[in-house]
Amino acid sequence: MAYAASSPAVPDWLNKGDNAWQLTAATFVGIQSMPGLVVLYGSIVKKKWAVNSAFMALYAYASSLLVWVLVGFRMAFGERLLPFWGKAGVALTQDYLVGRAKLSATKRGSTPLVEPFYPEATLVMFQFEFAAITLILLAGSVLGRMNIKAWMAFTPLWLMLSYTVGPRLKSDRERFSPNNILLMIAGGGLLWMGWAGFNGGAPYAANITASVAVLNTNVSAATSLLTWTCLDVIFFGKPSVIGAVQGMMTGLVCITPGAGLVQTWAAVVMGIFAGSVPWFTMMILHKKSALLMKVDDTLAVFHTHAVAGLLGGVLTGLLATPELMMMESSVPGPKGAFYGGGIKQGAQAAGEQPWQRRWGVVEAWTVWLDRRIIEATIGKTSDLVRIERWLCFNPS
Amino acid sequence: MAYAASSPAVPDWLNKGDNAWQLTAATFVGIQSMPGLVVLYGSIVKKKWAVNSAFMALYAYASSLLVWVLVGFRMAFGERLLPFWGKAGVALTQDYLVGRAKLSATKRGSTPLVEPFYPEATLVMFQFEFAAITLILLAGSVLGRMNIKAWMAFTPLWLMLSYTVGPRLKSDRERFSPNNILLMIAGGGLLWMGWAGFNGGAPYAANITASVAVLNTNVSAATSLLTWTCLDVIFFGKPSVIGAVQGMMTGLVCITPGAGLVQTWAAVVMGIFAGSVPWFTMMILHKKSALLMKVDDTLAVFHTHAVAGLLGGVLTGLLATPELMMMESSVPGPKGAFYGGGIKQGAQAAGEQPWQRRWGVVEAWTVWLDRRIIEATIGKTSDLVRIERWLCFNPS
Amino acid sequence: MAYAASSPAVPDWLNKGDNAWQLTAATFVGIQSMPGLVVLYGSIVKKKWAVNSAFMALYAYASSLLVWVLVGFRMAFGERLLPFWGKAGVALTQDYLVGRAKLSATKRGSTPLVEPFYPEATLVMFQFEFAAITLILLAGSVLGRMNIKAWMAFTPLWLMLSYTVGPRLKSDRERFSPNNILLMIAGGGLLWMGWAGFNGGAPYAANITASVAVLNTNVSAATSLLTWTCLDVIFFGKPSVIGAVQGMMTGLVCITPGAGLVQTWAAVVMGIFAGSVPWFTMMILHKKSALLMKVDDTLAVFHTHAVAGLLGGVLTGLLATPELMMMESSVPGPKGAFYGGGIKQGAQAAGEQPWQRRWGVVEAWTVWLDRRIIEATIGKTSDLVRIERWLCFNPS
Repeated sequence: MAYAASSPAVPDWLNKGDNAWQLTAATFVGIQSMPGLVVLYGSIVKKKWAVNSAFMALYAYASSLLVWVLVGFRMAFGERLLPFWGKAGVALTQDYLVGRAKLSATKRGSTPLVEPFYPEATLVMFQFEFAAITLILLAGSVLGRMNIKAWMAFTPLWLMLSYTVGPRLKSDRERFSPNNILLMIAGGGLLWMGWAGFNGGAPYAANITASVAVLNTNVSAATSLLTWTCLDVIFFGKPSVIGAVQGMMTGLVCITPGAGLVQTWAAVVMGIFAGSVPWFTMMILHKKSALLMKVDDTLAVFHTHAVAGLLGGVLTGLLATPELMMMESSVPGPKGAFYGGGIKQGAQAAGEQPWQRRWGVVEAWTVWLDRRIIEATIGKTSDLVRIERWLCFNPS
Repeated sequence: MAYAASSPAVPDWLNKGDNAWQLTAATFVGIQSMPGLVVLYGSIVKKKWAVNSAFMALYAYASSLLVWVLVGFRMAFGERLLPFWGKAGVALTQDYLVGRAKLSATKRGSTPLVEPFYPEATLVMFQFEFAAITLILLAGSVLGRMNIKAWMAFTPLWLMLSYTVGPRLKSDRERFSPNNILLMIAGGGLLWMGWAGFNGGAPYAANITASVAVLNTNVSAATSLLTWTCLDVIFFGKPSVIGAVQGMMTGLVCITPGAGLVQTWAAVVMGIFAGSVPWFTMMILHKKSALLMKVDDTLAVFHTHAVAGLLGGVLTGLLATPELMMMESSVPGPKGAFYGGGIKQGAQAAGEQPWQRRWGVVEAWTVWLDRRIIEATIGKTSDLVRIERWLCFNPS
Repeated sequence: MAYAASSPAVPDWLNKGDNAWQLTAATFVGIQSMPGLVVLYGSIVKKKWAVNSAFMALYAYASSLLVWVLVGFRMAFGERLLPFWGKAGVALTQDYLVGRAKLSATKRGSTPLVEPFYPEATLVMFQFEFAAITLILLAGSVLGRMNIKAWMAFTPLWLMLSYTVGPRLKSDRERFSPNNILLMIAGGGLLWMGWAGFNGGAPYAANITASVAVLNTNVSAATSLLTWTCLDVIFFGKPSVIGAVQGMMTGLVCITPGAGLVQTWAAVVMGIFAGSVPWFTMMILHKKSALLMKVDDTLAVFHTHAVAGLLGGVLTGLLATPELMMMESSVPGPKGAFYGGGIKQGAQAAGEQPWQRRWGVVEAWTVWLDRRIIEATIGKTSDLVRIERWLCFNPS
């Protein structure tokens, strides 16, 4: 292994393979948002919302990065003030950013601090891409209900200019076709491929867990897409390309908490559940439930993310293997319920994985902050409460 | 080189640089299919076929991954039962997937087993992307002739619902314009860029051969695009953007068997051939040949892939250098005919390179299986035989 | 670290982590051009120019690669004949390409030759992507004024067929809307994400400087986009999505010379300048200046690149920190004016960074060669002089 001796840019603790993979994975996750979700949102909605929807996603991406380095990163990942809540602080100075990355590990005290083999700057970048895509996914549930100025107000960076939110017009809430199916598939394709960075980057290293996570992610997405399409054919007589893209998304969301922790046959099982349970809640239950009917969720984010995410958490709790969990955390002990771990250990397996918990933290933080700001501005929280409630149900 | 001592996720045989590159290369090849070929197909055909064509490619991608982990990977790459045919088996269990990757080497007995420095999971993922793109390229020759349900029947995973195949309507077979040129170029661009993963990942390591292969791939594509465009200007008086994209594709296909084995000036030579011979068979010969006229090949896959691929095999046989072949396989001996290897050694050089042979195996396997299924279902093989014949001629 | 002992493809000087990152970064930069800028250009212009504009970018990409390996690379990076000008030579033979990459370092004699830990082939590939994007950015200033044949003549590879250049029709020069906003954002998004490879690949290694550069690049782009959008809202009453994309571009261009050299808070400062100064020259000054009005610059490349680039050079000169410069070059000494370096050292800091100087060399070379050819052909240089002058002002 060729190395320049004692170079300030290449300290002893740096592993260039890990740093290469983590920066690459961050870029792949970025491509999921930009242009993946930007194009997906712009093309899946009614034509009259196309530019507004794409602009919302673009704006969300940019504004969340600034919040991230100003306050978000260290609140989520810095020194702990409370469990799940770090001390605030900026991620803007070289002293902090060129030092070795640090991550507090799982709750059990036996786990030492995890220190990936690359600088804090890489970690800030990678974790930001998670935070950004979370905010953009949130945008998916209010498309067609907010104009871009209102969204600017909503994303926490902008002086309040105006605020308009509420259910879409009744006529707009009926089923609509994508305005450009080809672009919708293009955006969906980038979302799928980029998920290799999302789950493959989560182990913070180019190690075996990363390899397993990338394979499982793809297997689950493919199985779920096929299951959803199958059900469309069986129950509605024909396949639907928009259904296929939704099945792909539920497969990706469902596998996320367990991507590096379950066997690949379990990824097939999770894909089958991911392609059928949200299909059922969306296509059958939604139409029968008075409660769900009240929710105006433009892109069915509730079904593709909250339902699929909850499913993923539960299935990970059941199916995580001790060997793969050991690889992930080097702490012996927790395993899925089906591997003798019992319900409690299964819940730990599902709930304590670093990237999952961290994504949860970021989501909670984003929504909390947004809610405070909106409350302060307009005092009308009914929509926000609903959104928050969904996100809290979404463990991935 | 910073390493965690004795971590189960980082065994001694793991090279994180290789693993990072191989996972990245797999993702680039995935982007070639999704959204590259999906968008290319959806935009290049007549508008009435657009969604159907894109959906076919999307479905093919998903279904082939499931087949791959269930049976395909180990049949192609597992322990040999016969030459070119492995024992069947699943690639679904952690025991198999976290172990070190293994590849049987070239036929000559002197070559030991090749074991890349990353786990089997990475190899399954990378090789899948090859299998998937092969199936999607096959889809290119039946666009406009099959509806999506028939395609689902064709791809080996689905209960047969209906089956309709046959030549396109006469009116549809006349030359048509792409329905969206801009998206066609976008898809073509992703195809080009992703080929860096396709050929750059083929050496299974981030080594010198990978560097040479990426450079040669780009040089050949550029030269071929320019040659094709030149010929369009000289013979038809104006350049054609669809011609430029076709020239790019023939350049990519032609260099593939020799990407890491020939000098870069030879990549220029191969690009010149790739941009002129298929141009000639497609623009001139096709119109004069009664046989070729009978073939209904929607996207000219015969010319862009079979002709260009055969050309690539022959030229690699002539131009492969002993030094670069040595880097690739560490076995002294074979070299291109122009380097004193003689015709026989040249043929070996062209025919025995790992990635080339493997792609051939995957293709043969896919088509064989498809054919068996279709035969069993409808007993009508005329179209399939034609497709199979092309693919067998396509050595890359 | 697992390594095959004494393999010809893995010599002692190879670092697989660096090689993986550099090949990945090259691919990301390639994606910026293809399909990033191709789609951006094709969608941002009037509909009647769409295909022509996309084809120009595609052709430029292909032709510049051939020039690059035939003569460009070694003229820019080979052995020095004169400062800023190397001996001509091809980059086409294996003897040259499989050897270790070499780069002459900064002008001060104390700096030894820099030798990255990967082969020359990787460096040729990476540097080409810079040269290509430069030529394509140049294309942005003549869109709508040249047809594709004229462009072929302009790019130095083609026998002259015809030549038509001049200001656009008066009616065409008025403000026009993009023909496809969604695709414009898609292209812009790929441009943004790919810049991680552009600046992250510039340190030639997967080291700490790369991590800092990727983070700063994203922070500057986001801040600049927000600043531009803010100004649009304040002065014109509403945000503009095309303005947001322009702000993103100025943020990317401005941070480029200093991406690995300034603190992240300084990237915020540079983003604020990048989103306001070019906004002012473009939205306010341009309309008041008789000189600027005369320039027919289709996509406002002057503002987004020349102004933003000059700004980036100056700000880097002021803000580069001694610690980060030390990491970049291992030579103690230069630092930004605000860190006690004084104006002269600041200018050095801005002017001597390897990737910046190199990009400048490539640009100068491209334009010089183009100009010679066009002069020889048509003897009409007025347009070229203008273009050249802008580029010379563009230090990034």
